[in-house]
Amino acid sequence: MPAPRSIELTQVTEWADGRLRRVQDSVAGEEPLEIRIGDAPLAVTMRTPGHDLELAAGFLFTEGLIQSREQLASLEAIADGSRASRGNVVVAQLAAGLTLDSEQTRRNFFANSSCGVCGKASIDSVRSRLLRPPNAAFRIAAETLCQMPEKLGSSQDIFGRTGGLHAAGLFTQAGELIVSREDIGRHNAVDKVVGWALQKNRLPLSDVVLLVSGRCGFEIAQKAIVAGVPVVGSVSAPSSLAAQLARELNLTLVGFLRGRRFVIYSGEERLILGDGVRPA
Amino acid sequence: MPAPRSIELTQVTEWADGRLRRVQDSVAGEEPLEIRIGDAPLAVTMRTPGHDLELAAGFLFTEGLIQSREQLASLEAIADGSRASRGNVVVAQLAAGLTLDSEQTRRNFFANSSCGVCGKASIDSVRSRLLRPPNAAFRIAAETLCQMPEKLGSSQDIFGRTGGLHAAGLFTQAGELIVSREDIGRHNAVDKVVGWALQKNRLPLSDVVLLVSGRCGFEIAQKAIVAGVPVVGSVSAPSSLAAQLARELNLTLVGFLRGRRFVIYSGEERLILGDGVRPA
Repeated sequence: MPAPRSIELTQVTEWADGRLRRVQDSVAGEEPLEIRIGDAPLAVTMRTPGHDLELAAGFLFTEGLIQSREQLASLEAIADGSRASRGNVVVAQLAAGLTLDSEQTRRNFFANSSCGVCGKASIDSVRSRLLRPPNAAFRIAAETLCQMPEKLGSSQDIFGRTGGLHAAGLFTQAGELIVSREDIGRHNAVDKVVGWALQKNRLPLSDVVLLVSGRCGFEIAQKAIVAGVPVVGSVSAPSSLAAQLARELNLTLVGFLRGRRFVIYSGEERLILGDGVRPA
Repeated sequence: MPAPRSIELTQVTEWADGRLRRVQDSVAGEEPLEIRIGDAPLAVTMRTPGHDLELAAGFLFTEGLIQSREQLASLEAIADGSRASRGNVVVAQLAAGLTLDSEQTRRNFFANSSCGVCGKASIDSVRSRLLRPPNAAFRIAAETLCQMPEKLGSSQDIFGRTGGLHAAGLFTQAGELIVSREDIGRHNAVDKVVGWALQKNRLPLSDVVLLVSGRCGFEIAQKAIVAGVPVVGSVSAPSSLAAQLARELNLTLVGFLRGRRFVIYSGEERLILGDGVRPA
């Protein structure tokens, strides 16, 4: 049986102004990924196959289940022989002496139907897992920010063919793309780049910009903050709660980053706005 | 303290080609909603405030926790006095004699970081909760389908102002918009229209078209099937798993519904394609 793929080809029929055409079409791959801690199932996420270990590592980190690479003894993809699990299970082993409080885990994850993990046992706990303040000394030039969406778009292999994938990318202060990942879920794309950084021992991400295609909701802002990111850019709108979280935790949040225009929702002091212009 | 709102006004700074402008901007409201069964927390979802009872009802139904309106004795929004829960808690009481198997519930929801509920205890169970086959006798004309996106767009109050919301709408066979709902999560928008139908005693939705803005992933297709919808249209791409599920369960799935063009991923037999054209 074939491994899950990030693009699937499928036979479709195109209707255009009354004319029919049979064509082969590419669609974004979507498969469930089960993350286990040892033998215990922890999470199932619908994701685009590819970089699954990064996704699992990033998920464990941004959800606060591990705080460092050292807490992860091993991480591997397994196939247990059943059809549905082909390549869709990742098993994490925690470092000796480290156990998850299963009741706490259950409470953290007991239910969630949102984009991104926000399944907390109570609303009061949603804002509770914020570790360190974003790097206040980081600066990024507006002109550099403006170049990032095109660079991220150019890095997307699949997106152009299917139109169905979100991307997340990490950029240096000089505007160089460090790594980008794609997924049908934008939170997964973020977990993949954070997981990449965890595995490369580059956390916290205190001197990079995280750029996401599409909107920036609460969970994206939350994951960025947990990973130590000081600046998040989005090509579309943030949500009210993302903007609020960014203001309260001093994350720089920029939206509608398109062409030579963007909107600053919080953290203006990190932006070098050009020609000596500084915000009042 | 104010109730949660579907639009929040926020002070932002616009940077355009080196010029700065302070403006008041609208952003899509996002707040956690906790759904409880009696005293027991069941789920927290990040949603756009508004139509919360419909969202809760639709969630309970499309996730298979209830199978009919009669199984729901009551549903009400409560405020328990804490700041974070203001208007953000809905309590469902099940009909007498009906209890949820808490272990089963826990397994169904134990974890999920995807868009839409897919937090199953194992991958094998992801495809397990499909109740009835979609209505094979339903037919819809291509010309009628093509008019739906504009009608759905015209119904969106908030979207035009913020650009950050997804919409879901139910349409009659004649192309009349029955109901539309918006949310920052497209799965929530779908739950809201399904919850509306549940409360109006209009389930199953065996003679309507469900149109969603944006992409159609697995969870949208799954929710549509559980609600008995025969035809799902999307203005963007479906995922591979949504297309596969639609083919296997005989749901008509149409994507890229824009202007006078669309792509048929499954269930062509329900489409009246014009000028006597019928698919081979």
